[in-house]
Amino acid sequence: MRVLVVSTPVGWLGSGLGGGVELTAASLVAGLLQRGHAVTVLAGAQSELPAGCEAAQLWCEGGVSQPSWQHCRREAAVQIPAQALLGYLWRRALTEQGDFDVLINLAYDWLPLWLTPHTSTPLAHLVSMGSVSTAMDAVIAEIARSHPQHLAFHTASQAADFDLPGAPRLVGNGFDLDRYHFRPNADAVLGWAGRIAPEKGLEDAAAVAATLQRPLWIWGVREDEAYARRVEASVPGGTLHWRGFLPTERLQEEMGRCAVLLNTPKWNEAYGNVVVEAMACGVPVATYARGGPGELVQEGVNGCLARPDDGEALTKAVERAWQIPRHQPRAWAESHCSRSAFAGRIEAWLDAVLAKPPCEGT
Amino acid sequence: MRVLVVSTPVGWLGSGLGGGVELTAASLVAGLLQRGHAVTVLAGAQSELPAGCEAAQLWCEGGVSQPSWQHCRREAAVQIPAQALLGYLWRRALTEQGDFDVLINLAYDWLPLWLTPHTSTPLAHLVSMGSVSTAMDAVIAEIARSHPQHLAFHTASQAADFDLPGAPRLVGNGFDLDRYHFRPNADAVLGWAGRIAPEKGLEDAAAVAATLQRPLWIWGVREDEAYARRVEASVPGGTLHWRGFLPTERLQEEMGRCAVLLNTPKWNEAYGNVVVEAMACGVPVATYARGGPGELVQEGVNGCLARPDDGEALTKAVERAWQIPRHQPRAWAESHCSRSAFAGRIEAWLDAVLAKPPCEGT
Repeated sequence: MRVLVVSTPVGWLGSGLGGGVELTAASLVAGLLQRGHAVTVLAGAQSELPAGCEAAQLWCEGGVSQPSWQHCRREAAVQIPAQALLGYLWRRALTEQGDFDVLINLAYDWLPLWLTPHTSTPLAHLVSMGSVSTAMDAVIAEIARSHPQHLAFHTASQAADFDLPGAPRLVGNGFDLDRYHFRPNADAVLGWAGRIAPEKGLEDAAAVAATLQRPLWIWGVREDEAYARRVEASVPGGTLHWRGFLPTERLQEEMGRCAVLLNTPKWNEAYGNVVVEAMACGVPVATYARGGPGELVQEGVNGCLARPDDGEALTKAVERAWQIPRHQPRAWAESHCSRSAFAGRIEAWLDAVLAKPPCEGT
Repeated sequence: MRVLVVSTPVGWLGSGLGGGVELTAASLVAGLLQRGHAVTVLAGAQSELPAGCEAAQLWCEGGVSQPSWQHCRREAAVQIPAQALLGYLWRRALTEQGDFDVLINLAYDWLPLWLTPHTSTPLAHLVSMGSVSTAMDAVIAEIARSHPQHLAFHTASQAADFDLPGAPRLVGNGFDLDRYHFRPNADAVLGWAGRIAPEKGLEDAAAVAATLQRPLWIWGVREDEAYARRVEASVPGGTLHWRGFLPTERLQEEMGRCAVLLNTPKWNEAYGNVVVEAMACGVPVATYARGGPGELVQEGVNGCLARPDDGEALTKAVERAWQIPRHQPRAWAESHCSRSAFAGRIEAWLDAVLAKPPCEGT
């Protein structure tokens, strides 16, 4: 298959601004290449192909980045800046579509979704977030009715946010598990990873650490500095250990030492990359029964679940997770979240997108 | 020719919300029908075909109206509301384009302009405003480079706002002159017509009327009530006569009584419909040498010109215009602004849009 992967216009590939979409892009491209497909990546200027994607062709376009839907009001109109990267990416994709068998859109944006019925090469979308916008809900629901096969989601929890006429296509996510080293033994510390922002619920993890009198190691960008200081002030001094935003190699090395990773999102997280990254190191995860993380964690197998926003239940979930043999989370990640398993699911999805309706013959 | 005319998504056809675009649409459709073309009009729900357009087919789409660029900040991003009428109109246009020889866009919007290179049926745009937005400037400049024949403008003053690689295609505008009755004699009153809003400069006309001690009759929607009251307070009581927003039949009957119509825009008005409407009744026009009105008025022929924003010069222009024989403005409107003359210019434009480049042969 000749595949054109169109990246997010929120930032260039490698900037980190694209959040989880950048990890998804790397995994999807490397996985498709491994399975023998020809892949071209279309992304913002300055983009670099991540490790494992060197065999792909890279096309870059300049332009003004898109504001992220995550930081807009739910009722906000679609915004397209002057000289928008979004417009230039899709200008190029539509111009060159004749050379590809399928186009994959990784951006959570109105324009590519709206374009779906009007391309000559089938255009498939891997939706990267749950519902955060009325305008996006509307166009996703519309395409779900006219082109149901063209949409895929990371988890059932995420897909349930949308008005879909049938069962959603779920593809999970994929990780290069060779980059995450299993640690059979843990230190007596807890971990937490994510952007430091209110929707990630760090204060709940801090409270559990204080209750259990264990240090909490924290990895991630301090996006909201005032919030970080409020969380710090809410627990006894010395409870929180700010470890910063680390590259994968160093993150997995430090995170692997934790007895349990806490994951505490306040919103319907589409997937939960750090949940799987911790498991890949042998760290069981305690999280709320909510969103992607609540779906990834199997009680007693790779972690433990608590009722959402219930601090006492989360404390007990951490105590139970502490007892889980560490080979279990690693084994679960290997069988469900490897890059090759993900690529297989993507390939099956693309086969369904390209399959002609039965009435048109073969 | 089979022509699909796509109307503005700011309001439905007949609502008045589309401003001058509604008059342009009526004139363009009726004119093309008269010349034997098959015309379909695609517009917002509740739209009605105006007089003279009954032979056209009307397709309506529901959806949320577009905010007007005229009322947005210059640096604002393109806004597309949830369930946007804009999206539904262009979904329908792209779906049905195969049944037409050419698509004409009347909307001042980013999406149809951006789509230009990606339609199978040629998509031509009649640009209805001067520069009011950086985002629109950028996409107009881009299409002017890639598809110069696909853009048309009302006046040279309007077109000069944009970054165009060559001479612009100018099509003026067209009026059903049978609806405007020539009045050989005037009352000793001045007239002014337009939305009552600061960019239309009513206070300048009021000051001239006060200086000349003549009543000023005013037609138009009181869009900005506080502004209307400020203008009222700036001149002696009894100077201003508010006549309201009238349908064409009554407007031309009242306006035809004026000795001179004043037109005082503070911005680069693309055309100046009321200028021609007054002339069609035999009323000479005094205006600033600025924008469309400054281009329509020929000194001493159909009106007189003043240096922009110079009240003394405008007063003198009114005094000169008062002396112009009233058959002159009417004759000028008949030879330059008739519906059939406009349709002829539109037809010539569409012929140029459809002409294959020489290298492709006939």
